[in-house]
Amino acid sequence: MSNQNEYMKFALEQAKMVRGQTSPNPTVGAVIVNEGEVIGVGAHLRAGEAHAEIHALQMAGERARGSTLYVTLEPCQHRGRTGPCTTAIIQANVSQVVIAMLDPNPEMQGKSVKVLQRSGIHVEVGVLEEEARHMNRVYIHWMKTKKPYVTLKMAGSLDGKTATSQGESQWITSPASRSDGHVERKNHDAILVGVETVIQDNPALTSRDPYVQPIRVVLDRNLRIPRSSKLLTDDYPTIIYTEQPSAFETTKQIVTLSKVTPDSVLQDLGNRNITSLLVEGGATIHGAFFTDRVVQRTITYLAPKLIGGVGAHGFIAGSGALQLKDALQVTYECIEHIDGDIKITAIVGEEDVYRHC
Amino acid sequence: MSNQNEYMKFALEQAKMVRGQTSPNPTVGAVIVNEGEVIGVGAHLRAGEAHAEIHALQMAGERARGSTLYVTLEPCQHRGRTGPCTTAIIQANVSQVVIAMLDPNPEMQGKSVKVLQRSGIHVEVGVLEEEARHMNRVYIHWMKTKKPYVTLKMAGSLDGKTATSQGESQWITSPASRSDGHVERKNHDAILVGVETVIQDNPALTSRDPYVQPIRVVLDRNLRIPRSSKLLTDDYPTIIYTEQPSAFETTKQIVTLSKVTPDSVLQDLGNRNITSLLVEGGATIHGAFFTDRVVQRTITYLAPKLIGGVGAHGFIAGSGALQLKDALQVTYECIEHIDGDIKITAIVGEEDVYRHC
Repeated sequence: MSNQNEYMKFALEQAKMVRGQTSPNPTVGAVIVNEGEVIGVGAHLRAGEAHAEIHALQMAGERARGSTLYVTLEPCQHRGRTGPCTTAIIQANVSQVVIAMLDPNPEMQGKSVKVLQRSGIHVEVGVLEEEARHMNRVYIHWMKTKKPYVTLKMAGSLDGKTATSQGESQWITSPASRSDGHVERKNHDAILVGVETVIQDNPALTSRDPYVQPIRVVLDRNLRIPRSSKLLTDDYPTIIYTEQPSAFETTKQIVTLSKVTPDSVLQDLGNRNITSLLVEGGATIHGAFFTDRVVQRTITYLAPKLIGGVGAHGFIAGSGALQLKDALQVTYECIEHIDGDIKITAIVGEEDVYRHC
Repeated sequence: MSNQNEYMKFALEQAKMVRGQTSPNPTVGAVIVNEGEVIGVGAHLRAGEAHAEIHALQMAGERARGSTLYVTLEPCQHRGRTGPCTTAIIQANVSQVVIAMLDPNPEMQGKSVKVLQRSGIHVEVGVLEEEARHMNRVYIHWMKTKKPYVTLKMAGSLDGKTATSQGESQWITSPASRSDGHVERKNHDAILVGVETVIQDNPALTSRDPYVQPIRVVLDRNLRIPRSSKLLTDDYPTIIYTEQPSAFETTKQIVTLSKVTPDSVLQDLGNRNITSLLVEGGATIHGAFFTDRVVQRTITYLAPKLIGGVGAHGFIAGSGALQLKDALQVTYECIEHIDGDIKITAIVGEEDVYRHC
């Protein structure tokens, strides 16, 4: 029993190594054990490539006969480039399969378990399930809603200010926090800002990693984006959501919606297989996502300073919660020191959060 | 050498046990060691009672001859109820005295070291000095400035709001945080609020500990405090600072100043041997202390919720810092989970802080 947990933890470690690189697929790890020895390990590295179980079975080879396979997600049952994983598991004569969680894909949800059982394989489900669900919360959310998992990024002073009352805002947080923010971009399929941020700051919104670049998304109801913006002129993909018919030539994508709202944009992004979205603001955009209750997670960088002032801007503009019962309840997941700043990650909702930092 | 640190750590532990109960005196601990054995320990328990060294020497008795005394602060040289500690140390025939830090009292600052050395006692100064200075930062500040060490207490949502845009404010933080706030009161000689807070909330500002009650201080320029306020009618001490001549009968103290400012109030409190002050607000009071730069420390309780809203109040009212270079720089000292909330303690200034939590 404790051995089971240990091997599943190992499988989860495999999966965590490749977190952020498998979208729109989930992160999956696998470990194969025979007579107390690890004989195969694997992780799903990238959408379109072999699944974790296939890598692990290939490593195990003939020794997979009679073994136990630990896998963090229910094995697939559909025809991929390497065929269904269930078939490969059956053909390898694995004796037992231990699964952390069922696949939330409505077409799955235990279907593979039955297939494996019908072939005489002993199947156990639910080992370290909480940890697996936490790891794959983005995939679960996207699979259930067909919209990306939304993380609101906020950065400012300990007292929640993003600028002084005279509007000075650069820089409040430390270089280390800003650099951590770039790493967070890499963990998301797309980054969203309002056009006002583009007009004010002309940001690049790149991850600083040339190999992994999220799609940049701009909400721009009246198509005010400056033609010289980095987001229009550099080599990375950008999607602009507007209510205007496209009025200028560009290599970037302009999507016209009858109404540009957080929800209409999330629907469209979800259909494009964008499973995770980092909303970087500014405060008006944060206010819209806050009011429409389409936030799953927040990341807050608090610099060690107090700015104060009645007129100084906060993280979330608009009218906010009118009553306390309308406040957005979160659960603190992780608090880290980043140079002199603090980074606070929180999950929206009141459930107990598996703290993984 | 490493033994020295270990014994001094033990002396510091003695002192920490009685933190908050020795004002206006510093917190002091002592350990006496002879031939590798601890033969005496002591702490200064209360102003007016025996010093740490005296307790430790009494415990050691005859065995103090030839011993080493570890003490967290330079022994006193003045005539107290039990006579100068230096005399007691010399009479006990202690061979060596190891001191963490000199007494910042301008009349001391090494005077006792010379007295001990003249009697042939070997004296060493500076062992775990940083830790000792941190522990006695309130005493050091008061001794140097003759004003209390000021801690600003802030409590609100993760995004720095103390109320919704419609003004609802009770309760944002958890019962556990509020109860921790009462314990913090106990650690201060006095608690300060603005009269607006008294009018709005009619708080008791007690520590919930019947034995240790800080003095309540109200800034009330125009003497608007309601006559039925708990602060006027209960049994604990209250000082009201006003610019009006006292206009009503009360058992509490009314102090008329030509100008009620943070600095004039701190001066008067310092003269009354108030060494530490917890400023509980509201935001206007915080703004005045912020603008006048008379804050040494902040305690911030952040509830796991987002309130948002341009009109929702923050921690610090007034104009705040106009430029970023005017922001109040702090150093995070301690971050704790309190129930679902976070408590962040920060020291004003950019120096490296000894993290003691």
